[in-house]
Parts: sequence; C-alpha cells; structure tokens
Amino acid sequence: MKMTDVINLYQQELQEVERWMTESISSEVRLISEVGGHIIGGGGKRIRPLLLLSVASACGGKGDGRYPLAAVVEFIHTASLLHDDVIDNAQTRRGRRSANNIWGNQASILVGDYLYARSFDLMTKYGNERVIRCLAQATTAMAEGEVFQLTKVGDVDITEEDYLRIIEGKTAVLIAAACEIGAIIGGADDDQVRLFSHYGHTVGMAFQIVDDALDYIAEVGQLGKSIGKDLDEGKITLPLIHALSLGTPGEKERVKAILHRSERYEGDFLWIKDFIDHYDGIGYAMKRARDFVHEGKKSLSFLPSSEDVWALYTLADYIITREK
Amino acid sequence: MKMTDVINLYQQELQEVERWMTESISSEVRLISEVGGHIIGGGGKRIRPLLLLSVASACGGKGDGRYPLAAVVEFIHTASLLHDDVIDNAQTRRGRRSANNIWGNQASILVGDYLYARSFDLMTKYGNERVIRCLAQATTAMAEGEVFQLTKVGDVDITEEDYLRIIEGKTAVLIAAACEIGAIIGGADDDQVRLFSHYGHTVGMAFQIVDDALDYIAEVGQLGKSIGKDLDEGKITLPLIHALSLGTPGEKERVKAILHRSERYEGDFLWIKDFIDHYDGIGYAMKRARDFVHEGKKSLSFLPSSEDVWALYTLADYIITREK
Repeated sequence: MKMTDVINLYQQELQEVERWMTESISSEVRLISEVGGHIIGGGGKRIRPLLLLSVASACGGKGDGRYPLAAVVEFIHTASLLHDDVIDNAQTRRGRRSANNIWGNQASILVGDYLYARSFDLMTKYGNERVIRCLAQATTAMAEGEVFQLTKVGDVDITEEDYLRIIEGKTAVLIAAACEIGAIIGGADDDQVRLFSHYGHTVGMAFQIVDDALDYIAEVGQLGKSIGKDLDEGKITLPLIHALSLGTPGEKERVKAILHRSERYEGDFLWIKDFIDHYDGIGYAMKRARDFVHEGKKSLSFLPSSEDVWALYTLADYIITREK
Repeated sequence: MKMTDVINLYQQELQEVERWMTESISSEVRLISEVGGHIIGGGGKRIRPLLLLSVASACGGKGDGRYPLAAVVEFIHTASLLHDDVIDNAQTRRGRRSANNIWGNQASILVGDYLYARSFDLMTKYGNERVIRCLAQATTAMAEGEVFQLTKVGDVDITEEDYLRIIEGKTAVLIAAACEIGAIIGGADDDQVRLFSHYGHTVGMAFQIVDDALDYIAEVGQLGKSIGKDLDEGKITLPLIHALSLGTPGEKERVKAILHRSERYEGDFLWIKDFIDHYDGIGYAMKRARDFVHEGKKSLSFLPSSEDVWALYTLADYIITREK
C-alpha cells in the first residue's frame, strides 16, 4: 500500500471532514472565513484527520462524530500554525504567502483564537467526556511545549531530552490525541486505546524529527519552505544537538556565535551543515525517527490484518520516507 | 452597600479563587508561571469571579466547582488581555509594564494560548455539560467579536449597532457566561438562568461603554492607562460614534483624516474631544450605560431580598459610577 492508496481509501470520509471544516469557519465576520479559508485551503496533508479516521475504522465501531472531531483536530493544528507563523515572523507557509504576511499579525492571532474556540465548541457538541478530556489535556501540553521551545531558542546547551520534550508538546501529543479519539469513538477497550495513543505518539515524534531534519537537507521547493529556517529562528533541532554533543568546545562556541549574531553570513549555514554532516547528525536523527516508527508499528501488532491496519502501517512509513 | 462591602462579603471565597489561579498557572515551564503570575497579579478587579460567586450564592444551591470555574472565567479574560496587548502593541496594563513589553510578543501569545487551554482543561474537570457548552459558545463569540472589531478599525462609518455587536463579543458574553454559570451551579431553574444571564449581559455592555467613555475623560493615573488610547489604535467608540452620527460631513472628513494620519498631532485629540463634547457624546454613552444597568437590575426583581442580591445591585451600580 502506498500513501496515495491510503488517501484513496478514506477519500470520501476526508471530503466529509473538509465539508465540516469549511462550514465551521463560515462566519458573518468575513475576515474569519477569509483567513480561515486561506490556511485550511493551504494544502495540508491532513495527517491528523487521516489517522483519526483510519484508527476509528480499524476499531470497527460506529465512530460517532468522527467527521466533526477530525475537523476539530485539524483546526487545533491550524490554529497553532497561525500563531507559530506570527511568532516566527514567517512570510510563507507551504509555498504560499502566510496569513500574517497577507492580513497582518493581528488577524492571524485573533483568527487562531477563533479556531481554538470553534474547536472547543465543536468537540463539546460532538465528543463524549473522554474525547473532551483527551483534547483538553493535549491542548494544554501543546501550549506548554511551545512556551518551553521559546525558552530554549538560541540555547546551545539544549539536550536531546529537552528537544524530545519540545517535539512531544508541539507535535506528538495532538497526533496521539487524534489516534486516541479514533480509538475511543471506534469502541476500543482501554488497553487498545492506550496502544493506539502510543502509536500516535511515536508517529508524531518521528514526524517532527523528520520535519526538522528535512529543514537541513530539503531542496528548495520541497517542504514548501526554505532550508535552514529553524536555524534562522534560533531553533536547535536534533541533527545539530547530536553534533554539539560530540563536537569540541571550540565548535560549540562557533555555533553559539553564529546563532547570536544579529545578521547571519552566507557561509554560516554551510559551516553548520558541514559540522552536522561531520558527526552524522542527520543520519542519527533519521535513525531515531525510524526507531520511533518501528516502536509505533509494533504497538499495533495486536490487530488482525485489515485494510485499515495496512493504512496505519503505511502512514507510519510515509512519515520517514516522505520528501516533503 | 458599597463596592468595598461586596468585596468583603466574598473575600474568603475570592481568596479560594486566587489560590486556584495561582496553582493552575504553576508549570514546570517557568516562563508560564512568570508571565501568568505577572498578569494575574496585576490587580484586576475580579469582576467576573465576583459575579459568578454572588450569583451562585444568590441561588442558594451548593455551587459545586465555583472556585475553579471562577478561576476559569478570569483566565479566559486574562488570556484575551495578553493577546489584546500584543495586537494593540500596548506598553502598559493597569499602570504596570505589559507582559509583551517585558517578555515580548511571542511569550504573550503562547502564554495566552496556555491560559485558554488550561481554562478548557479546568472546566472539563469541574464543570457539567451545561457549563462547558456555555463557555464554549462564549469563547467563540468573544473571538468573533475581536475579529469584527479589527475589521472596523479606522472606519468612520461604523454604526452604533456595529459597536454594540463588538462590545457584546469582547466583554458582555463572558460576563453573561460568568452569571449564567453561577446560576447553573447554584441550582437555578431555566428561566432564572436566563434572567441572570441577561443581567450579566447588560452589566457587561454597560461596563464596556463606561470603559470606552473613560478613555476620553479619565485623568492621567486613573484607569491605569493613558487617555485617548482607543483613538490612537483607531478604535471608534460610542461617544465618537454618537458625535459622528450628528456631525456635519466636514467634521466626519476631519475625523477620518486624523485617524488615517500615520502620526497624530497634539491638537488632534483635543479637537476630537471638543467635537464629542459639542454633541454630548459622553453624556449619550453614559445614558446608554445607565439604561443597560437599569434593565439588568430589573431582570433580578424576581429575587427576594438578600445580601447576595444587594451585592449584585451594588456591582451593577459600581459599573457606571467607578472612576477607574
């Protein structure tokens, strides 16, 4: 099974989710529909809705409320992107102008708030108590992870443990929540819910590690973002953390100097990339990502083979093989 | 009964709410506790918790979860202040440096998101289904109002109806929700819940109208903010809307020119203040506020006299007589 097969398998269901998203951002206040429509229509991969739908289907239950709840998970993700782009002063997102670039920071902050509120509104309508608790904890952990990331900007003493904690908050908890909710509404028992949640956690960790590694190796045009963006923002990710852990004090000083310079020279990024390559930072990160995916797939071994289970394996593999 | 008597009456309960707030922002991520502590400790009037507590008490029921729920309502208010200050590029808040001034926009946006998430987490733990639905709708309407306000910045054709819609979203819905939740957990029947919610709505409308009027007339040091701040931000509030509705086309053009100038001259604010005074814009706004308060008090006439009811009347009167 390939990623395109997975998308085909859930195409009709994904269209229902799109319909829910479009209808839920339609507001009398036109700016909300405009900004919301721009970011929602920006061609995200819909990984979170896909995971929720395929887990719900794998569990075989009715999956009550799965379309609005998949929309909720994507909205929460989208709201965090709107705020992230303001925080990072990003000018593009997935190869298009970012919302803050078009409508300004104010609109992006407030429409982000609107999407969070709307998610909350939808989940209280269509989710049961367990679903709501799961999302409440996930959004709190997400915000905590984002603030923690902020405190580590430009800090060359950041550890791999710090990094894992950051990406758990900013990415893995919401992907784990998507899988957990799929399992809950699919009628899984408590042990199974935990296993699906763990699968989501590992896939989410791998997803972010690969995303961060691609920031060093992607060709222009891939990823829909420019190379070295994280470094520009002072975000030190796993490839560099690994190199720093093996490098000399002199090399660490040089990284620090580059990060703290107000302006970066053309050679700076190349030097850091060489430094990472010397200690095989990318290879190390990709190995960590593969380990997470392996662990995630193992946690689904209790499931009898089915199209949905193959889709979940394929999604996990896609995370580490995708080029953008 | 005076405002100080009201505060004394609920002092112990308010302390419980403070304790919930302090404990709920304590996080392993120190920046969250720091920024959260700064804004929470900034000496807000705690009008929303006071209303929730006094309504719950007036209803005579047990008021389960009233302390964490009062903290939730104050957190939602506080989160919106953090984001508003970023949007308005405010340097001060209640006479102290604003959080964005001290820690930057990024921290303010993310800690605001954290407070929203934490509120949601707390209410799903301590609120029943009706309470949660009420807060879900209120936060959505709040965000919608804030975006609507943004689209009306600098628009001299803004109508009184637009203005009332903005202040309903940015202020009245959350105050109405505080009263509604107090009534729900206090065991009021459906009709009574509606009446308390209406009381909250009117008090909230009056509160914002007075706040906006004080922006034209407060002495420096009062309100903890400088005069003419709204005008600086291009926000056209009721006193000016009223003057514009009665003024000449030439006067409207002059207001428009002043608002759209990149730099404002010293005489601009004085000219606008004279223009407002000429058409008694402040008098009109205060009259509207008094009408709202009168309507709000009337909606409580079904209640037998009690200390709590007197507190609710006093709170309503305080809104229109306060100087800061």
